[in-house]
Amino acid sequence: MQVASAQPRVNPGRLRQALEQLSVYGRPTGGTFADGVSRVAYSDADLAGRNYAMQRLRDADLQPRIDAAGNILAVRPGKDPSLKPILFGSHIDSVPAGGNFDGDLGSMAALEIMLTLRQNAISTRHPLQLVFWSNEEGGLVGSRAAVGELSPGDLSRVAVSGFTLAQGIARIGGDPARIAEARLGPSPFHCYLELHIEQGGTLAKAGIPIGVVEGIVSIDEYNVEIRGFANHAGTTPMPERRNALLAAARLIDAVQEVVTRQPGRQVGTVGRLQVFPNAPNVVPGLVKHTIELRDLSPDRIAALGQEIRRRSDSIARATNTEIVITQVEHDPPAVATPAIQSAIEKAAANLGLRTMRLPSGAGHDAQMMARLGSMGMIFVPSVGGISHSPREFTAWQDCAQGADVLLHTILALDQS
Amino acid sequence: MQVASAQPRVNPGRLRQALEQLSVYGRPTGGTFADGVSRVAYSDADLAGRNYAMQRLRDADLQPRIDAAGNILAVRPGKDPSLKPILFGSHIDSVPAGGNFDGDLGSMAALEIMLTLRQNAISTRHPLQLVFWSNEEGGLVGSRAAVGELSPGDLSRVAVSGFTLAQGIARIGGDPARIAEARLGPSPFHCYLELHIEQGGTLAKAGIPIGVVEGIVSIDEYNVEIRGFANHAGTTPMPERRNALLAAARLIDAVQEVVTRQPGRQVGTVGRLQVFPNAPNVVPGLVKHTIELRDLSPDRIAALGQEIRRRSDSIARATNTEIVITQVEHDPPAVATPAIQSAIEKAAANLGLRTMRLPSGAGHDAQMMARLGSMGMIFVPSVGGISHSPREFTAWQDCAQGADVLLHTILALDQS
Repeated sequence: MQVASAQPRVNPGRLRQALEQLSVYGRPTGGTFADGVSRVAYSDADLAGRNYAMQRLRDADLQPRIDAAGNILAVRPGKDPSLKPILFGSHIDSVPAGGNFDGDLGSMAALEIMLTLRQNAISTRHPLQLVFWSNEEGGLVGSRAAVGELSPGDLSRVAVSGFTLAQGIARIGGDPARIAEARLGPSPFHCYLELHIEQGGTLAKAGIPIGVVEGIVSIDEYNVEIRGFANHAGTTPMPERRNALLAAARLIDAVQEVVTRQPGRQVGTVGRLQVFPNAPNVVPGLVKHTIELRDLSPDRIAALGQEIRRRSDSIARATNTEIVITQVEHDPPAVATPAIQSAIEKAAANLGLRTMRLPSGAGHDAQMMARLGSMGMIFVPSVGGISHSPREFTAWQDCAQGADVLLHTILALDQS
Repeated sequence: MQVASAQPRVNPGRLRQALEQLSVYGRPTGGTFADGVSRVAYSDADLAGRNYAMQRLRDADLQPRIDAAGNILAVRPGKDPSLKPILFGSHIDSVPAGGNFDGDLGSMAALEIMLTLRQNAISTRHPLQLVFWSNEEGGLVGSRAAVGELSPGDLSRVAVSGFTLAQGIARIGGDPARIAEARLGPSPFHCYLELHIEQGGTLAKAGIPIGVVEGIVSIDEYNVEIRGFANHAGTTPMPERRNALLAAARLIDAVQEVVTRQPGRQVGTVGRLQVFPNAPNVVPGLVKHTIELRDLSPDRIAALGQEIRRRSDSIARATNTEIVITQVEHDPPAVATPAIQSAIEKAAANLGLRTMRLPSGAGHDAQMMARLGSMGMIFVPSVGGISHSPREFTAWQDCAQGADVLLHTILALDQS
């Protein structure tokens, strides 16, 4: 394709180097890049990684600041000071025993784009604002504060690091007492853009380098309590049992069946399950487990939830148990702005890169930003669909291509 | 029936009083008899209950002694000192939050029989030896020592009380350093008899007051490890998942199906199960669970185990997981001596009581004694089949009838 020479381009080596340099903060002792990272928000490793990132921003003549929620922000002025900024970035905290691409790629690509623009002496009409959101993995904490939805109660919650959110935010230079100041005003940006690894295997399997995110899925989460009767496993004949784990087993299989019997990308997961009293020689009397359903369409997962409830009724009757299903969470979907999806597709096409549209099954800071204005996300392939694991990997070429698509989307939207 | 006036008879009121008096040791604070008991072996409650039982033996002019394993033994001499004793009894330790009949009934009935014989001035040919085994619920510890199978390694094991077996045995007046002295010699008794609650619902459902135990079931226990791949529940499409909990669910249902599809009293239980990482938003990557199979026939449960293995192979293929099943325990069955089963039936018939033969699905000290000589067990109905629970109950009339059958079985076997 003639268009494949579209300029400017990011520097793939410099982007890789930034990711590799960042990867040492939270790396397991004696490990290598392939051993992943534990850069849990508010941990010493998170502090060290943030210091590295801030230094890189200062080296790029950007003046980073930390807001009250601990988010790192840096602005490159535009030619028209009356225009709102184009906001883009991601996060650099990780899950425990995570990988070096989740969040890091979108963050280091944002930095690389700033460097590329400077190197090519390109000025934009809109200000460009880079953001590294704080504690994404702990519940989109930084971006949640930016939309004003981080409550005082949230601040006392203990994070994975062992610190409360308030303690953690103070540790990373935020100010929990003034958390409200992290809230962005109305219509705070021209648009929000985020490059991220897919974390699933769809792009990798299809051999397509660029995913255009249609939106971030809706999530319904249920708690299930199955009440049978704990009794002696040796003396209780099979027909007399009220086995809560047998009922749970059938419900888990029913969730699978209900979710997969119709085409589509909906997913359903029983991820957490506890058995009581949980002894080899006692018929389980009580089982508690979760059910999580995700799809772009909240109506679809509501219907799946209804069907699962119907199945649970007949399972309860057949096993002489009581099954109580309580919905504990409903996250609405966050739809990516159609004009931005088109802009990403055009930018990729200009770079000679194939695209496919797909939903994001994972949550992202972008879903918070979608409440404030136009939002778009770019995905690049995750090898083997593996994420939240030291084995998480995205080919370096895919990283650079994703950054190029983000850069060209920014430049295109700067003209709108 | 004319035979229903067979003499002698135990004193039902005195037996009930003994059970009620014993029940206060380990009773929940502020509770009543209906609140059950936690008389865990080696606990303060166990010590207090043992002191009460010892005092009752002394009041009956029996001279109780404590052997090196902490078993309480008392002998009533017979007319022929050359004959071996008839050994009978049970245990008075309980599970945490247990009931007032499991073990207590057989123990207090043994005492009541001694009192009844004295009151009726009946002498037996054989010495009568009463035993309250120590720490039955913790793995037949006292009776295991009596057959010489308690190893030094066992002694360092931590019991439910928090004490090691060695510490606990010392607490209750045994001598762990001389544990070998608790071992009984060859052919140590004429026969061993034990009255116990059924702990299942078979007798209660059939409306039959006396169960003649055919034997104590064989137990095969397996550990199952199901290895899938933990991945993000939002981003991993259903067809790409290697869901260890889905595989476990199907295996649990397969165990139920394999065990119940043929007639018989065999039972199969998945009682303990753990999920890793056990988070609502992560596809389970690893599940560990137990499978326990019980039947009088070891061949039958071996065949069930084979069939479950076969099912696991196809489940592993269908779910793209690896299922590793390891047998960790094989307890052989302990068959009750046929002549003793007949003697129990005759004794019951003479008392006008209907009987049925049934296996014991639970383990008992009697299975240890079966290795040393003739053994028989008498079951009485458990209301609702409930045991190892404060709700464990056996009608007082059933308790007294069981004690009468034990008494008359002793008297009959004394003549053999």
